[in-house]
Amino acid sequence: MYRLIERDGCAKSGEFKTVHGTIQTPVFMNVGTVAAIKGAVSTDDLNNIGTQVQLSNTYHLHVRTGDETIKKLGGLHKFMVWDKPILTDSGGFQVFSLAKLRKIQEEGVYFNSHIDGKKIFMGPEESMQIQSNLASTIAMAFDECPPHPADREYMQNSVERTTRWLIRSKNELDRLNGLEDTINKNQMLFGINQGGTYADIRIEHAKIISEMDLDGYAIGGLAVGESHEEMYNILEETVPYLPINKPVYLMGVGTPANILEAVDRGVDFFDCVYPSRNGRHGHAYTRYGKLNLFNAKYEFDERPVEEGCECPACRSYSRAYIRHLLKAKEMLGMRLLVLHNLYFYNHMMEDIREAIRNKRFKEYKKQMLENLTHSS
Amino acid sequence: MYRLIERDGCAKSGEFKTVHGTIQTPVFMNVGTVAAIKGAVSTDDLNNIGTQVQLSNTYHLHVRTGDETIKKLGGLHKFMVWDKPILTDSGGFQVFSLAKLRKIQEEGVYFNSHIDGKKIFMGPEESMQIQSNLASTIAMAFDECPPHPADREYMQNSVERTTRWLIRSKNELDRLNGLEDTINKNQMLFGINQGGTYADIRIEHAKIISEMDLDGYAIGGLAVGESHEEMYNILEETVPYLPINKPVYLMGVGTPANILEAVDRGVDFFDCVYPSRNGRHGHAYTRYGKLNLFNAKYEFDERPVEEGCECPACRSYSRAYIRHLLKAKEMLGMRLLVLHNLYFYNHMMEDIREAIRNKRFKEYKKQMLENLTHSS
Repeated sequence: MYRLIERDGCAKSGEFKTVHGTIQTPVFMNVGTVAAIKGAVSTDDLNNIGTQVQLSNTYHLHVRTGDETIKKLGGLHKFMVWDKPILTDSGGFQVFSLAKLRKIQEEGVYFNSHIDGKKIFMGPEESMQIQSNLASTIAMAFDECPPHPADREYMQNSVERTTRWLIRSKNELDRLNGLEDTINKNQMLFGINQGGTYADIRIEHAKIISEMDLDGYAIGGLAVGESHEEMYNILEETVPYLPINKPVYLMGVGTPANILEAVDRGVDFFDCVYPSRNGRHGHAYTRYGKLNLFNAKYEFDERPVEEGCECPACRSYSRAYIRHLLKAKEMLGMRLLVLHNLYFYNHMMEDIREAIRNKRFKEYKKQMLENLTHSS
Repeated sequence: MYRLIERDGCAKSGEFKTVHGTIQTPVFMNVGTVAAIKGAVSTDDLNNIGTQVQLSNTYHLHVRTGDETIKKLGGLHKFMVWDKPILTDSGGFQVFSLAKLRKIQEEGVYFNSHIDGKKIFMGPEESMQIQSNLASTIAMAFDECPPHPADREYMQNSVERTTRWLIRSKNELDRLNGLEDTINKNQMLFGINQGGTYADIRIEHAKIISEMDLDGYAIGGLAVGESHEEMYNILEETVPYLPINKPVYLMGVGTPANILEAVDRGVDFFDCVYPSRNGRHGHAYTRYGKLNLFNAKYEFDERPVEEGCECPACRSYSRAYIRHLLKAKEMLGMRLLVLHNLYFYNHMMEDIREAIRNKRFKEYKKQMLENLTHSS
């Protein structure tokens, strides 16, 4: 249940009550693809870096270890020892980006596992069954992620099918939530708006799915190759047609600047692999711009990655030490930067919430965007 | 300064005072080759798993990042943020095992770096200079690690040179400790006993180096291919000729069983990569035998790796979850097992100390050896 707390322009801040606790928005979900954050980060660590909600991938968990195994072990929360909210994606994005030899039909998608080539079928019902087995807090509807660019006719047909799949997803999840042996009988469902960069298709689709009274609404199929300006434009056009009293989730986005711009257009939820992936590659996000810790200029730099930061890396270790670890290919260097980057994202969201709730988001955004452009 | 607290048969327990705090022995040193424990383990973590002393590798730090850089950054303690004791090896073992195209002369060893092929010379003076730059608590004398097997004549000549190198090591470290800009002017020196499996050469060498009043004595050149029985036999023959009022360090050893047997023959200090390396490969040490967490039988096992263990892995996570992480190649699986294994070693040493100080070491050893043979 979403409660809108404050609006500042189009930016909004709310709280979203779930059976696993309340999420304050805007929020950045920390991505734990296979029930673990890449970079040797545990759920104990997440509790120390301000993580509110964790995202796991339906497709990955289905093909490796398996959702039925996880169900027998009591669901994802028990499995990874995390009592706060978890959102699972629908598997759709991975089916369309990772899996091989896929074939899209009205009933769903036939594809081969990227792990062992095994033939798999996934449609709305299968996606819901897997997510119900995982027992996440929030399930995502099964949708098609159309290629970018896609022609208008393809997009129109794809979006219509995504709507039909959303109805099937909702019906199936309602059924699963009513079953005796379902772990989380209160599993929520977010629908996904599609339409690529065709604003009119997006708007039409947003209107249709808004009538379905879902728990939240996502905007999918962005950050797939279009420009940032196109993405911001689509948000401006589409978000107003999604319910104001429901959370809006922009899938797979993005850089700190992307997030600031999207918040300014009414987005509540985000997820992205950037903080963990960039951390593993030696890049750190800071309030003063991005740092490449492989850079020779940090050889003798005894300052923490970000001065004033209270993350587990910055509390103890120097840039010089982390640079040394990265160059020596020590996992610890990656771990420390991933912890820092996730802490940075989580705390930037905290600042964003505070700014919106104090009606000074524009000012905050301007200042942050200026700071972030200093790359070093 | 070593103080013998208790003897139980040949087993001994003492305490070793250093400028970085007191070490209770017997002790297992946690190996941080390049100023980091492999498996994404930080010095903050070491403080949580009962580590008393950390070991870093002179050769590795010399060829990568460089001891002069670390000196400019205030020495190893400041660099890796660790205020307890650090022992650095002499670099000798790595020169003889890792480096290519080496040439041994009276003055030292010429070799090519295993990183970039660069020509390097290292003799006793160079080794001491590097260790002084690193500013470890305890420096190891520069020795030759003879191949195994080596013929008697080779061994005799090698050991005599190692004695001459020990004298040069001591003289150089005395000089360095007296210099104005030396970071740790109280750096201690351990000499190394060599002689392969020739007990008479070992004993003769032990007698000679014992007269030098060093801070401690190591037994090197074991665990290089000889049988466990040969190793235990050499310890029985040699340790009685090392001073009882100094710590005895068995280099590079070993399994929990090896450690129990060596303690029973008078050894105080140990180091080994087994707990971290085996952890990274999915193997866990427990009081109830060794576990291979890749094993299918752990798929639904909700127990911790070791029941009753208070390590950061066992406090939170199940065997089933760790198995899943390992199979999904998630770094977190390795990290959790390395933390568990180091915790296991550190706490086994604590139990060993308690057993010796309560004069019930034989009983403890018998029980542990019985338990450890249960491999699963």
